[in-house]
Amino acid sequence: MKKTIIENGTFLTMNEEAPMIQGCMVIEGNRITYIGEEAPLPAGSYDERIDGSGKLFMPGLVNTHGHAAMSLLRGYGDDMALQVWLQEKMWPMEGKFTAQDVRAGTRLSVLEMLKGGTTTFVDMYDHMNEVANAAVESGIRACLTRGVIGLCSREVQDAKLAEAIAFAKNWHGQADGRITTMMSPHSPYTCPPDYIERIVQAAHDLNLPIHTHMSETAREVQENVDQYGLRPVAHLEKLGVFSRPTLVAHGVHLTDEEIEVLKRYDVRISHNPGSNLKLASGVARVPELLKAGVLVSLGTDGAASNNNLDMLEEVRLAALIHKGVSGDPVAVSASEALKLGTLDGARSIWLDDVGALQQGMKADFIALDIDQPHFYPRTNFISHVVYSAVSKDVTDVCIDGRWVVRKGECLTMDEEKVKFEAQQSFERLTAL
Amino acid sequence: MKKTIIENGTFLTMNEEAPMIQGCMVIEGNRITYIGEEAPLPAGSYDERIDGSGKLFMPGLVNTHGHAAMSLLRGYGDDMALQVWLQEKMWPMEGKFTAQDVRAGTRLSVLEMLKGGTTTFVDMYDHMNEVANAAVESGIRACLTRGVIGLCSREVQDAKLAEAIAFAKNWHGQADGRITTMMSPHSPYTCPPDYIERIVQAAHDLNLPIHTHMSETAREVQENVDQYGLRPVAHLEKLGVFSRPTLVAHGVHLTDEEIEVLKRYDVRISHNPGSNLKLASGVARVPELLKAGVLVSLGTDGAASNNNLDMLEEVRLAALIHKGVSGDPVAVSASEALKLGTLDGARSIWLDDVGALQQGMKADFIALDIDQPHFYPRTNFISHVVYSAVSKDVTDVCIDGRWVVRKGECLTMDEEKVKFEAQQSFERLTAL
Repeated sequence: MKKTIIENGTFLTMNEEAPMIQGCMVIEGNRITYIGEEAPLPAGSYDERIDGSGKLFMPGLVNTHGHAAMSLLRGYGDDMALQVWLQEKMWPMEGKFTAQDVRAGTRLSVLEMLKGGTTTFVDMYDHMNEVANAAVESGIRACLTRGVIGLCSREVQDAKLAEAIAFAKNWHGQADGRITTMMSPHSPYTCPPDYIERIVQAAHDLNLPIHTHMSETAREVQENVDQYGLRPVAHLEKLGVFSRPTLVAHGVHLTDEEIEVLKRYDVRISHNPGSNLKLASGVARVPELLKAGVLVSLGTDGAASNNNLDMLEEVRLAALIHKGVSGDPVAVSASEALKLGTLDGARSIWLDDVGALQQGMKADFIALDIDQPHFYPRTNFISHVVYSAVSKDVTDVCIDGRWVVRKGECLTMDEEKVKFEAQQSFERLTAL
Repeated sequence: MKKTIIENGTFLTMNEEAPMIQGCMVIEGNRITYIGEEAPLPAGSYDERIDGSGKLFMPGLVNTHGHAAMSLLRGYGDDMALQVWLQEKMWPMEGKFTAQDVRAGTRLSVLEMLKGGTTTFVDMYDHMNEVANAAVESGIRACLTRGVIGLCSREVQDAKLAEAIAFAKNWHGQADGRITTMMSPHSPYTCPPDYIERIVQAAHDLNLPIHTHMSETAREVQENVDQYGLRPVAHLEKLGVFSRPTLVAHGVHLTDEEIEVLKRYDVRISHNPGSNLKLASGVARVPELLKAGVLVSLGTDGAASNNNLDMLEEVRLAALIHKGVSGDPVAVSASEALKLGTLDGARSIWLDDVGALQQGMKADFIALDIDQPHFYPRTNFISHVVYSAVSKDVTDVCIDGRWVVRKGECLTMDEEKVKFEAQQSFERLTAL
């Protein structure tokens, strides 16, 4: 088993008992086996010794909501209302996506995420075998789900559900456990109630969690009330969704009562500040969710509504916007925001040994070059990472004990080929 | 006169008639003398030929409000209310700043700004000779002003005003015109009315503009009403401030009537979204200001309240937060936000030949490496720059026809020395 030691490093651990450590970290196989100020005893021999000076090591970022293939539509439609953007720009183009396009878009996104320090991502899309293969190839950790839209005939519904079940069953636990799966009705507004119930039953049968979009826009909430007489939370509760472990994307428009319901069922919220701002969906009630004890994490959403997959930017937005909007300068502190983007991200997708630099945790971590003007003076590195760092400060990325990025270069994917194929796919789609 | 041609480049011009050009740009001395799709005729000889492929060239960013020396306090106090932060953290430390500290902090900030693509900055601080010297040395364009706080004896007021006048007089037009100056009462809440009137008179005498903080927090507005019976806009109007060309920082809390007054006097607003969010000051009414025809630009404010000097981040925040907060997905478009950060930034400080890539304009421009995943596919580069780029994508920076950054390295400052001296200053200040 490969044994690596990083010496003279600055470690931002996300372990509350010792948040910052100046010292050493040892990785054996895919686990962190030691972290501390002193060199580990007895002195051992290592396959690799890394000088960590000038670097800050921290847990990899966990992106808990997205549609990786949508990077093909980055910049294709901006500054439009959500429904117009979906109906006139996104859906017509996505309708043309083949498995090959999903492969090209997903690989582009995974490359961007890896280089920006994201070590785990959630993906809800179609042609999910391509997404799983991209995860296998690239070395990224992934929680994947075939998102199904049920506005179609019973036959098509059946076929989609069967496909979602087969995907979830085949891939759960694959790639040395790096891949896990979920079941996903796309949203209450794109799935009839009986179809949602069938998906919930399948999740029970497979013993898997559920991931869905919910309460992203005020319009969607109102339409749910108009159509079903219930707001989305009560609607999904009634359909049994929350009887499964559930991760909900967005949750922008929630009442106090709904927050209580979510807490009671331990429903997790993937907060997507960049996407919610850009699509003018609103600002989620994150301070209230956190106060209520709801587990919140961060997601980029697809690159078409963000428009990058930069999790450090989402962390910063989470720390900034709730202060500005609420008028409370202590709403969502820097360390809280960073926790949402790392440890709580992993917990949100039921990964209990990911998201902190601590003995026994999986070796999913990144290094940032802190020998740069915006990291000076050396005051508070949590503050510097949250308020000052950018994704391109990430130089090295290790996932499950394997280096996937070194000195800013991705070791597992051919960058030129990934960019070229994404451009080709986009040009083919626009020419159709 | 040195003559440079950039060939095969992608140019984001900020010239409405031809916003994107794939072609060539020629720089002679400190001016752009040609930009177009075809090679310029007749074919000439050049001192330098640059292959622009894989690069996006655009006007340099213009940072219209800040306190560069405050980078020494980056991360020193976070997640606190503005008044507490000022009174308990910032002012006690700033009180200890010597000229040497201002030199160290300013040079750290200028280095960060240059590397992140800022080609012009506004600075309001003390020990301004140090700031001007840093501008001379580094090659950056600067609009500088000695900010005076008048909560002191008449003698001290007199001395500060004399110093501000001397600075403004000595430095205006220096460094081949790269440096211009203004006069600055710090704010209505830190300067008695009669002192503000004296500063206005000095600005008249010197024929210089005025720069001040105004209406940053709701508390400040209320205290102005309590103390003087007027909101800050009416108060400053009454004191004659707007009889001079004026650039106001923040302008977060404004009524419709106040916006009309600002428009009538052609007062310019430096919108500082990152700082306003972090200090929980609120969200400025930028869509309303723009609709009223007020000239708005962008500023980082000091690094202690931001915590970086990343103007691309301010551009992105300007494009994102007003959508999310207003619920209007077309509020502040990508191209509008980019204009605030470039062309309108220059216009805000009365520089009419800066901020666009166009024949006759000053050669203040930057290059971004667009051969990276987050710039694919090649759809809309304005969108990519605003929603997807980060400061570290900037590879080259040219100011007034002189390269100050090439391939990510600053040519005019010793980076190691700048970082070392900033750290030294910080350690000295905290040890006092």
